[in-house]
Amino acid sequence: MKPVRLAILGLGTVGGGILKLLQENAAEIKRRTGREIQITHVGTRRPRPDLNLDQKIKQSADLLNIVAQDDVDVVIEVMGGIHPAYEVLLEAIKHGKHIITANKALLAEHGNELFKAAEDHSVQIVYEAAVAGGIPIIKVIREGLAANKIDWLAGIINGTGNFILTEMRDKGRAFDDVLKEAQELGYAEADPTFDVEGIDAAHKLTLLASNAFGIPLQFSKVYTEGISKITAQDVKYAEELGYRIKHLGIARRTANGIELRVHPTLIPQEELLANVNGVKNAILVQANAVGPTLYYGAGAGAGPTASAIVADVVDLVRDISYTEDGAGTVPQLAFEALTDLPILNREEMTTGYYLRVNAEDQTGVLADITTILSRAGISIDAIMQQTRLKDSIPIVILTDPIQESIMDEALAKIQALPAIHGETIRIRLESLDQ
Amino acid sequence: MKPVRLAILGLGTVGGGILKLLQENAAEIKRRTGREIQITHVGTRRPRPDLNLDQKIKQSADLLNIVAQDDVDVVIEVMGGIHPAYEVLLEAIKHGKHIITANKALLAEHGNELFKAAEDHSVQIVYEAAVAGGIPIIKVIREGLAANKIDWLAGIINGTGNFILTEMRDKGRAFDDVLKEAQELGYAEADPTFDVEGIDAAHKLTLLASNAFGIPLQFSKVYTEGISKITAQDVKYAEELGYRIKHLGIARRTANGIELRVHPTLIPQEELLANVNGVKNAILVQANAVGPTLYYGAGAGAGPTASAIVADVVDLVRDISYTEDGAGTVPQLAFEALTDLPILNREEMTTGYYLRVNAEDQTGVLADITTILSRAGISIDAIMQQTRLKDSIPIVILTDPIQESIMDEALAKIQALPAIHGETIRIRLESLDQ
Repeated sequence: MKPVRLAILGLGTVGGGILKLLQENAAEIKRRTGREIQITHVGTRRPRPDLNLDQKIKQSADLLNIVAQDDVDVVIEVMGGIHPAYEVLLEAIKHGKHIITANKALLAEHGNELFKAAEDHSVQIVYEAAVAGGIPIIKVIREGLAANKIDWLAGIINGTGNFILTEMRDKGRAFDDVLKEAQELGYAEADPTFDVEGIDAAHKLTLLASNAFGIPLQFSKVYTEGISKITAQDVKYAEELGYRIKHLGIARRTANGIELRVHPTLIPQEELLANVNGVKNAILVQANAVGPTLYYGAGAGAGPTASAIVADVVDLVRDISYTEDGAGTVPQLAFEALTDLPILNREEMTTGYYLRVNAEDQTGVLADITTILSRAGISIDAIMQQTRLKDSIPIVILTDPIQESIMDEALAKIQALPAIHGETIRIRLESLDQ
Repeated sequence: MKPVRLAILGLGTVGGGILKLLQENAAEIKRRTGREIQITHVGTRRPRPDLNLDQKIKQSADLLNIVAQDDVDVVIEVMGGIHPAYEVLLEAIKHGKHIITANKALLAEHGNELFKAAEDHSVQIVYEAAVAGGIPIIKVIREGLAANKIDWLAGIINGTGNFILTEMRDKGRAFDDVLKEAQELGYAEADPTFDVEGIDAAHKLTLLASNAFGIPLQFSKVYTEGISKITAQDVKYAEELGYRIKHLGIARRTANGIELRVHPTLIPQEELLANVNGVKNAILVQANAVGPTLYYGAGAGAGPTASAIVADVVDLVRDISYTEDGAGTVPQLAFEALTDLPILNREEMTTGYYLRVNAEDQTGVLADITTILSRAGISIDAIMQQTRLKDSIPIVILTDPIQESIMDEALAKIQALPAIHGETIRIRLESLDQ
């Protein structure tokens, strides 16, 4: 059989990692596929003589030209960013090239158009590397759990955020302090917004949810909250109550629609997910036949990302060898036909809560708060009065799950009590046990 | 497209679970495959009127006749046992039927012949349910990690054994006591040998290793040691040193060959694998590009096993729809061609050790022991003299990795010291960090 020919667009850390991996594991990969894999083109603005690329590999900055070449079967896009990646991939699809991409932002925001174009041109877009790096979570959900109706999934899908929260917990450090270290270590970008404000996680959650429920990609409907307001104080109180704060992406099927949300979340200390530390990722999936399963590993980095990209290469090589036109056997978003289930607004979602109220030391304030919660039908699971700080006493309350709109109203009333100082902190809480 | 037609052989817990799952999730599965799935035959010695099977499903005890029928595309074998499963599946293969089986014993011991027959007749044998129940670990290793050279894997792959060890640790209970409870709870068989002596785990490890390294199935070469000799005392000492004892199946690639071993193992408390409790399973895989990844979930039970079986059904339905004769795209044991790497004997393997020596309270014995170890080139990582028991003082020693033959010799010398009482306990230790 003829070799399968690849064009790699982007020669940064990940692009370099792919070249290295294809070379290093060439023998093992050949044993798996029984077929030669050849890199014919590399698209890069700056040539990289340091990589000592094979002389036969053509380097060029003209990406639209590369994707039109006859000696390309598969285009690997690891440039990142939405433009020009979107235009280049559309062009590649029109030329009948299969696509492998790690570009979560592009797929979450423009995937519906790209998948449609791929279908029209009978090519595949595969994207294992776009979610949770080297963990084969897309394959697990699309194929491994295909017998199940998936109830929900909850994932630590941003390594930077998890590194920051882990350091805050282990060493009692402040957010800003750890963020600075993360930037120095290269875990966080100079502009850390995408990571710490949850946008990156929301991109990944969008992809996970479509594969879990068979719904179109709907990034704009993900409720997204970052970790920049989490304080060392709340991390400590959570720990005392038996919980850890993790930044989770959660997709849940409810009777009224789908919840898509990214936010800091208290989860029980003894959960495996609570023990996923540092830059590592993990996804917990609750499905109706198998029950809970968890998938853990490196969520970023050249090696792990290349691992996912090249696994997609292997899949495509197998598909090109054994299916008509390499069309493959698995639907792009796990389902033959997508369903338009409603996505809930934040106000319609249901979660448990950690509340921290700063109260004056005044008789009756505890009674006032619990009365407000009780009248709203909010059950209190735990309540803890903390040591007095300068001018107030922090009262920490854990509640059972309640609809957010009800909590909004109750909190407005609590906030209006004269004995309350400053803003009441609310962090969501999930027991992960259903 | 015509429906894909299934025959289910065996109507026990798992068989019943498959029927229930195919019915309960029919709509979701149809959305994934775009194709009808029909059960046409059920093979069972005793008819099950309580299951209210569709009248169109034929029930029969004549399995060889069922697998010859024209209205069967796929045979699902969930009878268990080696005979007559082996003969029935060979017959099914000769009639061109694809096979799905959960039968780890059959595959580990006779898989090489069965896979050969399947190749000759252009059918697939798939077996996700044979290892770690509902965790899609075969798919992960065959496909998800296909870009990697796998260095080693270590798994908790027998739920009964893990339940027993978890109870022993949590409650300080004795092995026999917990085993009895496990039998009452239905976690352990009346004859628990397969589970507690590691045979079941060795069957599963055989399948994992072939998929990880591309070697033929070699069950007879797995070094297998059970948990029946683990005492509450050693569990406690391990805990004090920061370790937990887990019954692991380990497959490791070394410069000299492959290690295949099942045995109780001390692993660091903070490892996720050490925190997998009760009947749950988990497999940690170390691969050269992605690094460590871990897969966790239910390893047995009707729902999880049916989840894996029906995921295989979905894969086969997709393959039958899109590849020639349904031959599929992935090699049966992950590699297009298997390699005959040498499998190491126990004496050639290398592990760390937990040793418990029972010494008379006599000056010099500690010096004698450490001298023997030091002369053998065995590094001591920790040493702890415990509180005196009736007639001796337990001395616990943790060592760095060393070849087993060297440890054998050193232990023989220690055992020959006049101040040593009874047998020295040796339990292997893995740091899981490379």
